[in-house]
Amino acid sequence: MATETATVNVVTADALLKSWQGHRRLTRRVIDAFPEEKLFQFSVGGMRPFSEMAWEFIRMAVPIVDGVATGKWEEFNKGEKPTTKSEILRLWDEQTAALDKKFPEIPPHRFYEVDKAFGQWEMPGIITIQYAIDNEIHHRGQGYVYLRALGIEPPPFWERD
Amino acid sequence: MATETATVNVVTADALLKSWQGHRRLTRRVIDAFPEEKLFQFSVGGMRPFSEMAWEFIRMAVPIVDGVATGKWEEFNKGEKPTTKSEILRLWDEQTAALDKKFPEIPPHRFYEVDKAFGQWEMPGIITIQYAIDNEIHHRGQGYVYLRALGIEPPPFWERD
Repeated sequence: MATETATVNVVTADALLKSWQGHRRLTRRVIDAFPEEKLFQFSVGGMRPFSEMAWEFIRMAVPIVDGVATGKWEEFNKGEKPTTKSEILRLWDEQTAALDKKFPEIPPHRFYEVDKAFGQWEMPGIITIQYAIDNEIHHRGQGYVYLRALGIEPPPFWERD
Repeated sequence: MATETATVNVVTADALLKSWQGHRRLTRRVIDAFPEEKLFQFSVGGMRPFSEMAWEFIRMAVPIVDGVATGKWEEFNKGEKPTTKSEILRLWDEQTAALDKKFPEIPPHRFYEVDKAFGQWEMPGIITIQYAIDNEIHHRGQGYVYLRALGIEPPPFWERD
């Protein structure tokens, strides 16, 4: 790669947070598009229901940002596994606010520093954060198939406001 | 956001290209995991078969990088819509090599410059590129559901080599 382009900064920390929160607004709409019962019980091909995927996103987002920020990797401990859509959405909104507060507290050097996330996954902080975002996009896409299979029009992919 | 963290460079152009090519290697494995006929005919919930999604990724990747690099937005014109898996994979590999060649030729200022992609979508170059990557992750996740519904184990999401 031409050196000039190779090293150019294309994403700043605040741009990454904005992009992630845009994805999270869309994911929230996907959660909300499911009828209560289907959110917890419906799936295709023997996969998990979408409530389990949403619960995974909740357990990853803030604990990963905390781990990258502090080097302390602690499992999500802000609530039990939700059993209703409103409880998922309440936890979701709490984590959204926590992300806005905590992400800016990541010390700049920690984005590059290699650490072992949750004692298992060894990579630079930015790669761990990007993995959480990509994982959310990946499984949310699966939620779109569930909604289509239920005859429900999913929210537009390109709307992030 | 604390100013120090807000403006820190978390993704360089070469890191973004490496991440995208990692995703593309995974997408190629997902294409290849489909039996020939299912790739073109199977879907869930009235959605497109995965061949159509792969064809969309092919038509987006290099034309978007060309557009961001040059300001000229031209539709993909390097081949007709493929009708076999081997033809999709051949086009895929061509575009992978073209990306490696063309991405480094994006002038640094073009990542930030607002342009109207294909005369329609007005945003900075980096946002257009990120959209193409996110769109690939999103629809590839849908391909995972198709594979599961077919009783086929998809390739591991975390393997990008």
